[in-house]
Amino acid sequence: MSRPKEFDREAALDRAIELFWSRGFEGTSIRDIVEATGVQKQSLYDTFGDKHALYLAALHHYLAQTDRTIAKLNDTGPSTVTILRGVLHGLATATCSGPRGCMLVQAVGELGPHDPAIGELAHTNVVALEKALAGLLRRGQSRGEIREDVSPRGAARMLITIMWGARSLGRGGVDEPWLRSALDHVLGTVAAPKT
Amino acid sequence: MSRPKEFDREAALDRAIELFWSRGFEGTSIRDIVEATGVQKQSLYDTFGDKHALYLAALHHYLAQTDRTIAKLNDTGPSTVTILRGVLHGLATATCSGPRGCMLVQAVGELGPHDPAIGELAHTNVVALEKALAGLLRRGQSRGEIREDVSPRGAARMLITIMWGARSLGRGGVDEPWLRSALDHVLGTVAAPKT
Repeated sequence: MSRPKEFDREAALDRAIELFWSRGFEGTSIRDIVEATGVQKQSLYDTFGDKHALYLAALHHYLAQTDRTIAKLNDTGPSTVTILRGVLHGLATATCSGPRGCMLVQAVGELGPHDPAIGELAHTNVVALEKALAGLLRRGQSRGEIREDVSPRGAARMLITIMWGARSLGRGGVDEPWLRSALDHVLGTVAAPKT
Repeated sequence: MSRPKEFDREAALDRAIELFWSRGFEGTSIRDIVEATGVQKQSLYDTFGDKHALYLAALHHYLAQTDRTIAKLNDTGPSTVTILRGVLHGLATATCSGPRGCMLVQAVGELGPHDPAIGELAHTNVVALEKALAGLLRRGQSRGEIREDVSPRGAARMLITIMWGARSLGRGGVDEPWLRSALDHVLGTVAAPKT
C-alpha cells in the first residue's frame, strides 16, 4: 500500500525543522507538518517512520551546521582568535534572529532527560565540538595567539557551555548586545594579551 | 458557583512544578495536574486562572530559588571565590540530578520567543543575578580574591551565560564531571592567582 515518495526530502526536512524549532516536538502535530510541506501523512510515515523518527531526521539535518562550524574552527588560515570571535558573534546574531536559539538545545530541553536518542545526538555533537575547539586553542597557543596558561580542554568545555547558554538565553530575556558582551568577555579570557 | 478553595496552594504549585519541569508546558495537561495534586479542575481554575496562568504561578514559585542564590552571593562572610565555587558546583550537582536542568531555562526554550510573560520573567531574573554577581566580583577585587583586570559586568554576564548553558547541557549529552571541569575553568578565569 505504500505510495511513491514523490516529494523533495530535503525541502520537507527544512520545513519540519522550522516547525519543530519554533514550536517544539510536543507543540508540532503531524497535521501541521502535512500542511506546511504539502506532503501527505502516509508519505511522511513511509519515508521517515513515526513523528519521533521524523523529528530525529530533522534534527540530524539541522546539525549539518555543526559540521560547518567545525570546518571554520579547523581553518588554519586566519588567526585563531579571529575564527573564535567570528563563531561566537555569528552565534549571537543567529540566536537573536529567526526562530532563535538552537534546535538541539531546545530538543535537549524538551526531551533530553527522557529520550536516549536525543541525549546520544547531543553527546556526539559536544564531543566533536570539544575536539575541534581544543585543537584550535592548541594551534593558537603554538602561534602565540592564545594564552599559554589556558587548558585547551577546560577552555573548550567552557566555550561549549557558553555557546549552549547563549543559544538558550537568546530565546528570551537578553538582547544581542548583552550576549555579545558576555561572549567577548569569554574570548578575552583565552586570547593572549596583545604585545 | 465557585467552590471553596480547600487545598494547599504551595503543595499544589510544588506538584505542578514537578510536572511542568519534567514534561514542559505543552506536554503537561490540566488533567495530569488534577491527578497529581488531587485538586479539582474547577478549583485550579478558580485559584490560578487558565493553564498558562498556572504555569506562570508555578514558575514564579520555582524562582524563589534565585532569591536563595542571590542571598548566597551577597554573603560577605566567606571568600568570594568560595561562594562562587559553591554556587557553580551546586548548579552542576542540581542539574545532573532530579528533573535536571532549570525550569526557567526550559520555559524560555519552549515558549520564550512567543510568550512575552516568560521573556519578562527571564529578563528580571537575569538582571537580578547580574547585579548580585557583579557586586560579588567587585567585593572580591577589593579583597584581592578576584583578578583586578576582570570587568565585573562582563564577567557577571559570562557567568550567567555559563550557568544557563550548564542547566541546558545537563539535561542531556554531558555528565557532572564534564560540567564541573567547564565551570572550574570559568572560575579560574576570574579568581586571583594564589600568591
